[in-house]
Amino acid sequence: MASESGKLWGGRFVGAVDPIMEKFNSSIAYDRHLWEVDVQGSKAYSRGLEKAGLLTKAEMDQILLGLDKVAEEWAQGTFKLNPNDEDIHTANERRLKELIGETAGKLHTGRSRNDQVVTDLRLWMRQNCSKLSALLRELIRTMVDRAEAERDVLFPGYTHLQRAQPIRWSHWILSHAVALTRDSERLLEVQKRVNVLPLGSGAIAGNPLGVDRELLRAELNFGAITLNSMDATSERDFVAEFLFWASLCMTHLSRMAEDLILYGTKEFSFVQLSDAYSTGSSLMPQKKNPDSLELIRSKCAGLLMTLKGLPSTYNKDLQEDKEAVFEVSDTMSAVLQVATGVISTLQIHRDNMARGLSPDMLATDLAYYLVRKGMPFRQAHEASGKAVFMAETKGVPLNQLSLKELQTISPLFSGDVSHVWDYGHSVEQYAALGGTASSSVDWQIGQVRALLRAQQA
Amino acid sequence: MASESGKLWGGRFVGAVDPIMEKFNSSIAYDRHLWEVDVQGSKAYSRGLEKAGLLTKAEMDQILLGLDKVAEEWAQGTFKLNPNDEDIHTANERRLKELIGETAGKLHTGRSRNDQVVTDLRLWMRQNCSKLSALLRELIRTMVDRAEAERDVLFPGYTHLQRAQPIRWSHWILSHAVALTRDSERLLEVQKRVNVLPLGSGAIAGNPLGVDRELLRAELNFGAITLNSMDATSERDFVAEFLFWASLCMTHLSRMAEDLILYGTKEFSFVQLSDAYSTGSSLMPQKKNPDSLELIRSKCAGLLMTLKGLPSTYNKDLQEDKEAVFEVSDTMSAVLQVATGVISTLQIHRDNMARGLSPDMLATDLAYYLVRKGMPFRQAHEASGKAVFMAETKGVPLNQLSLKELQTISPLFSGDVSHVWDYGHSVEQYAALGGTASSSVDWQIGQVRALLRAQQA
Amino acid sequence: MASESGKLWGGRFVGAVDPIMEKFNSSIAYDRHLWEVDVQGSKAYSRGLEKAGLLTKAEMDQILLGLDKVAEEWAQGTFKLNPNDEDIHTANERRLKELIGETAGKLHTGRSRNDQVVTDLRLWMRQNCSKLSALLRELIRTMVDRAEAERDVLFPGYTHLQRAQPIRWSHWILSHAVALTRDSERLLEVQKRVNVLPLGSGAIAGNPLGVDRELLRAELNFGAITLNSMDATSERDFVAEFLFWASLCMTHLSRMAEDLILYGTKEFSFVQLSDAYSTGSSLMPQKKNPDSLELIRSKCAGLLMTLKGLPSTYNKDLQEDKEAVFEVSDTMSAVLQVATGVISTLQIHRDNMARGLSPDMLATDLAYYLVRKGMPFRQAHEASGKAVFMAETKGVPLNQLSLKELQTISPLFSGDVSHVWDYGHSVEQYAALGGTASSSVDWQIGQVRALLRAQQA
Amino acid sequence: MASESGKLWGGRFVGAVDPIMEKFNSSIAYDRHLWEVDVQGSKAYSRGLEKAGLLTKAEMDQILLGLDKVAEEWAQGTFKLNPNDEDIHTANERRLKELIGETAGKLHTGRSRNDQVVTDLRLWMRQNCSKLSALLRELIRTMVDRAEAERDVLFPGYTHLQRAQPIRWSHWILSHAVALTRDSERLLEVQKRVNVLPLGSGAIAGNPLGVDRELLRAELNFGAITLNSMDATSERDFVAEFLFWASLCMTHLSRMAEDLILYGTKEFSFVQLSDAYSTGSSLMPQKKNPDSLELIRSKCAGLLMTLKGLPSTYNKDLQEDKEAVFEVSDTMSAVLQVATGVISTLQIHRDNMARGLSPDMLATDLAYYLVRKGMPFRQAHEASGKAVFMAETKGVPLNQLSLKELQTISPLFSGDVSHVWDYGHSVEQYAALGGTASSSVDWQIGQVRALLRAQQA
Repeated sequence: MASESGKLWGGRFVGAVDPIMEKFNSSIAYDRHLWEVDVQGSKAYSRGLEKAGLLTKAEMDQILLGLDKVAEEWAQGTFKLNPNDEDIHTANERRLKELIGETAGKLHTGRSRNDQVVTDLRLWMRQNCSKLSALLRELIRTMVDRAEAERDVLFPGYTHLQRAQPIRWSHWILSHAVALTRDSERLLEVQKRVNVLPLGSGAIAGNPLGVDRELLRAELNFGAITLNSMDATSERDFVAEFLFWASLCMTHLSRMAEDLILYGTKEFSFVQLSDAYSTGSSLMPQKKNPDSLELIRSKCAGLLMTLKGLPSTYNKDLQEDKEAVFEVSDTMSAVLQVATGVISTLQIHRDNMARGLSPDMLATDLAYYLVRKGMPFRQAHEASGKAVFMAETKGVPLNQLSLKELQTISPLFSGDVSHVWDYGHSVEQYAALGGTASSSVDWQIGQVRALLRAQQA
Repeated sequence: MASESGKLWGGRFVGAVDPIMEKFNSSIAYDRHLWEVDVQGSKAYSRGLEKAGLLTKAEMDQILLGLDKVAEEWAQGTFKLNPNDEDIHTANERRLKELIGETAGKLHTGRSRNDQVVTDLRLWMRQNCSKLSALLRELIRTMVDRAEAERDVLFPGYTHLQRAQPIRWSHWILSHAVALTRDSERLLEVQKRVNVLPLGSGAIAGNPLGVDRELLRAELNFGAITLNSMDATSERDFVAEFLFWASLCMTHLSRMAEDLILYGTKEFSFVQLSDAYSTGSSLMPQKKNPDSLELIRSKCAGLLMTLKGLPSTYNKDLQEDKEAVFEVSDTMSAVLQVATGVISTLQIHRDNMARGLSPDMLATDLAYYLVRKGMPFRQAHEASGKAVFMAETKGVPLNQLSLKELQTISPLFSGDVSHVWDYGHSVEQYAALGGTASSSVDWQIGQVRALLRAQQA
Repeated sequence: MASESGKLWGGRFVGAVDPIMEKFNSSIAYDRHLWEVDVQGSKAYSRGLEKAGLLTKAEMDQILLGLDKVAEEWAQGTFKLNPNDEDIHTANERRLKELIGETAGKLHTGRSRNDQVVTDLRLWMRQNCSKLSALLRELIRTMVDRAEAERDVLFPGYTHLQRAQPIRWSHWILSHAVALTRDSERLLEVQKRVNVLPLGSGAIAGNPLGVDRELLRAELNFGAITLNSMDATSERDFVAEFLFWASLCMTHLSRMAEDLILYGTKEFSFVQLSDAYSTGSSLMPQKKNPDSLELIRSKCAGLLMTLKGLPSTYNKDLQEDKEAVFEVSDTMSAVLQVATGVISTLQIHRDNMARGLSPDMLATDLAYYLVRKGMPFRQAHEASGKAVFMAETKGVPLNQLSLKELQTISPLFSGDVSHVWDYGHSVEQYAALGGTASSSVDWQIGQVRALLRAQQA
Repeated sequence: MASESGKLWGGRFVGAVDPIMEKFNSSIAYDRHLWEVDVQGSKAYSRGLEKAGLLTKAEMDQILLGLDKVAEEWAQGTFKLNPNDEDIHTANERRLKELIGETAGKLHTGRSRNDQVVTDLRLWMRQNCSKLSALLRELIRTMVDRAEAERDVLFPGYTHLQRAQPIRWSHWILSHAVALTRDSERLLEVQKRVNVLPLGSGAIAGNPLGVDRELLRAELNFGAITLNSMDATSERDFVAEFLFWASLCMTHLSRMAEDLILYGTKEFSFVQLSDAYSTGSSLMPQKKNPDSLELIRSKCAGLLMTLKGLPSTYNKDLQEDKEAVFEVSDTMSAVLQVATGVISTLQIHRDNMARGLSPDMLATDLAYYLVRKGMPFRQAHEASGKAVFMAETKGVPLNQLSLKELQTISPLFSGDVSHVWDYGHSVEQYAALGGTASSSVDWQIGQVRALLRAQQA
């Protein structure tokens, strides 16, 4: 008999439930995460019931005490799940009843699992978003500190994996740090929409017993209440937003990881991972693999998986969402910490970075040289291209072309062309805001630090 | 010879290009959309060059005039593309040179296609986001007006497609309208991040010629400038955000469409689409298919396709993104207009809606009746479940059980139980904010209208 | 010291490993599934080593005995994992060494985790694909049996959720069964490509110690050996194929579930789920939700998630794949069994099905009536459409139009038009192979049964 | 009036259609591809009608002639679309009627757009799959030829982007060619399931007019007929399978492209793309970007987009599928041809490849040296790891450690250890089938060629 098994819908069912079906339907395995917020939400709700006259003060106190006991059991690992506990909400209420008796049956008055579940999820996410926010800012701070400390190191900037122009190593670090500041900003916006209270929406039609939702909001410290009960119980926009946030953030971390994997190859040899973030091969004794970076990349891919399925399902099949949220939160937390560790322990090989610079990377500057002498850019670009071609044909570096040779391309070349070949001089030209000159790098550092301060507040 | 074909990289290449490759590489087919913003961006940039001393006033004027001519040709449909125009930027500059001669070659000084492309895209999106914003608010407004006008119509609320509780038809409309207000809010946030100027970032290292990016920002009316040149040219977060915005918004429209498809079946018969939004069958003469609603749903699916591939690619392969943006903008524009049309012309069948209500949908209210008499909710829920089971067993509607029969379940039942069976009375109980009572529906209408006013401002 | 912790790459590392990183990198949690096939693969490999002269007969026997002991510990639940066991392969070899000493160190000779992992995965999948194959055929068999038993039940066929034409209930069942036969066929193809041996490919370059891969193949009963060692260790096409198979199969099950959810609504009332496959509501006592069907649908969505991320990652980040395979296998197994249970216990309401038929669904037959009298189909379609419009306008069912009224549309109508209105007669017309006539339904049943027999062989 | 506009459902509609809606609903823009197969299908169907006695011989001949005329107009580019032609099927039938009069109205007898559309799509795909099959085999053939010609070139094999072991350049080529042979095999399986005839299924219930589907099958040269009319008209498994095939194939091409992009960087310098497959930069004169490879990669990403959305939609919203098929076919065709061009014109730098080999890549072989002297592999691996560490600490290449130094690690080292340092000797050890030894490479070439021959047959 179903009623004996204590299922919530009690008196009606006469058939037994297929055991495969039961296991299939149960969400208890992963929603244990929610025990704390479930108790928190129930405590607020019992206060709401008391104010609405549906609980006496004594009943409320009894329930509050019982709920604290439930929480204590969870905290101490002594809470015992029954096979019939199909989710965390059922389990907590079942235990409450064992502890305080029939009064427990009043707690769910006017509440539905629909508004309870989503309230719990929002409480949980609010808390975890704050943690992730702090970890993300810590990573950005580490990056900015490193960018400041190593501002004098130059190395090749790449586009299409081809050497493009000399840049500061700090400029590269900041390019990734700046991307992460957008993630930090977006996370604050997500948090704002997470922080809205659905409790008091019932299953679909609302609450008919005079519960004061403003009181519930204040009790649970939410920023606002939801506007429509049907929407409140069925929408998971905030989950989709969180997962999207995570996916973009992970994309940024993944790009940084890909760069570092490349810079760590024998062929590039610009950086070396700390042993704490590498592993070896079971077969090849000489190998040291950038596993931390590969895991960042693969976790990113795994997370995108989760995201991609999301929007098409999240409205119909809300159970899967919760699981995604828990998993993605855990992953993000680990990834942000590993990334911080990697960045703060990474060694750089300044000599190899310097050796990575070659005169052909100054071809653009050579064109600008001609522009400064008055040649229209398109012609200057073509002239510089000819110089590159000439150097390649002769098999010499671009800066080894004689002045005479250059002058066969354009009479505007003169002795001062030699200044072009100084890499330090090159980067300092890029002084417009956002460029790789030291003044601009300093400006960027200041801007990012100001953003971090503002976001923390 | 490559140089004869006028390709931008001019002097260097000696091989010919595989024609399949050339076609494959060309983006001109879809980036025609950008002609207007490309001219706009180039005009601002030539002003920046003049201020930096890289163009004389006369040269600048010549370029501005030439660009206006180019724009005019596009506007009048007389612009002729060359087979060698691989993208819109090349095409416009090629034409400018034909119109004004060598001075045209100065326009690209210090600029790269990298910063030019992304500037154009941001200008285009800024403009289109505004249009979509207005269309979205128009749809919400239509829905709210309808909700206000038909506030007295009751019909069944469903969960799991099973009849759950009686609700107001307006409550259903508002549940969708409220979801759309979140989309409207999110779009404003996306617009804020679109509205940042990357021009002056060059290919990767920045701008070395003293161009004043603040001047460019002011010229093009952007809200801010990008912080780091590498990030500025390679990031497309704003594209991913826009597509994600569209996907969530479409999910909401799709859910509404699915509900309406169902409500329009013979079996439900709650609503009827205007002929303007239906089509027939080539085989079955009696059929009238809800094609507008199915198209909203399928466009949603198609758009999710686009989104899903996004995050994993957008950084590597930026060309595909632009195409996605154009397509998604067009789709959103059409879908929002069709949805507005559907909602404003939809007929409702009040009688069928009323007939859809049945006494078993009041079983929750029956439990609340007992709660009000002092029974704990869990027992009341079980008692009401027993009443449902008894009515089913006897083959009568729930409200046809005699008082005596009810009293076999609980002695708390008395004559006043008859009030439970009044649907109008039922919905008015759900008066907590967000519920389906008329006071709450009025409150919702007020809230949504206030949001619309705030967002418009 | 790393060497003390017993890590496989032993002598080289000097740094400690970040604990977050270690946890992050460990796959032991989910690859426990593989213990059995890992032992199986190692036993075959030790036979290969003996034949190649790298193990003596005595050493091989010692290893085989030790591996059996390892397997026994797993089977009896006494195997104890160390915190340093980063994956199942490490764990088993570590334990083997504890059991038999230094000889254990010879087992990995010429083998790499790269070829070991993929061999294990293929062994595991081969076994599980066979199980899924059997479950799938069991479901199809159940459906065909039901189709045969209820061949005489008619009900409405829908397109666009609009009533289209009368069909046999068996025709609907068979439409889903036929779809599943394709899944069954595809699974056999996947199994063929799973059943290829990679062992003997080493890390990348192959095996340098004369191991006979044909012997390994025969030992492990694979159908073929892989052709190229680099490809063999890095490709996971068979995983992608399996997941794609699962996604298509789930799509079919999900569609069937969606139909049944709809047919089970109050409004349709064609079918009723057994209580064993339904659950109730915590708030609304009268509700009985089709949770089994919703779970099939939501598991499908969850699985698609997994699939969608797949192709972009599977080559880079193989670890995530294994997890997906285990999860998807489990899900498919549960879903196929639940679906079989649902289908075999489902009740149908023949009366409601019959009541669902209405004369307007015969409008196509009315057109065919005119076609048989010689009118071109397009005109007949238009004439029938006019009759539908006339009936709607008059507010009568289509079959209540008088002959006189019909003749105002076409003089071809005569007294025998009354035969059109017999639903039983209607379906029997659709006698071309694949149609809904009883002869065709019998033919379909025969075809599907023949396929099942062929696939089982 | 709808009837004036000539819409197929003729007599019933009284409202006008929203113009945005009309444009939204029209598929004519992209299903022009189908004109040829649509005519082909209609010709076969008119033969079926004649045999069933629904057309006279004269009517059939008139229709066949008319359809040939329609085809001719399409072929010569003179076919004129009407604004009211909502799809290719409507357009062709409308034109047929203009050409031959009322008899045209008999062509659609017993046929529905549902079975017509899917028949056309299957005909189109059958034809295009054959073309893609041939292009794919051409690419594989080119790769195998190159592998044979350059069998003597050695270069570094990488795992985790770290140098792993010396391998033959041909081994790398073959690793990709072997992957493509699986795609070739899978495409044949897809073609088998594409090649099934749905015509004669009507809209949902089948064909009631005695059309002989076996005759239709033979006319159109299909391999089999579909089993169930509902399934036949609504399933698009073959589309999903084709798109999945394309996505896996593209993944393989993309991986090859990624390797080549890396091998083409300044830092690796192993290969150089022909100018015909590269492009330059608008800003940096020295750059030559591997655009063909990047486009392969990005087209892959774009295609995955398409795939990812697929399974969740394809059943509901079939219109989007067709578009995906056309686009993916075009992309695959271009990509396969570009890849063939790239492979056949690629230059390799043998010297750089040789220089890429370094003694530490032989550390595995050093371990095997000890294994051959009788040391268990795990100890040998650790001993070799110590040698690597010793060499790193001393700052010398691994092969510069003296025998004395090696003997401090293990007394098993003796003078013959010098043979280990010969790269040519190293690769020849990997002689097990599938390894990088020349005998195995020859075997692979033979196996792939045999497969190609078998698949062509």
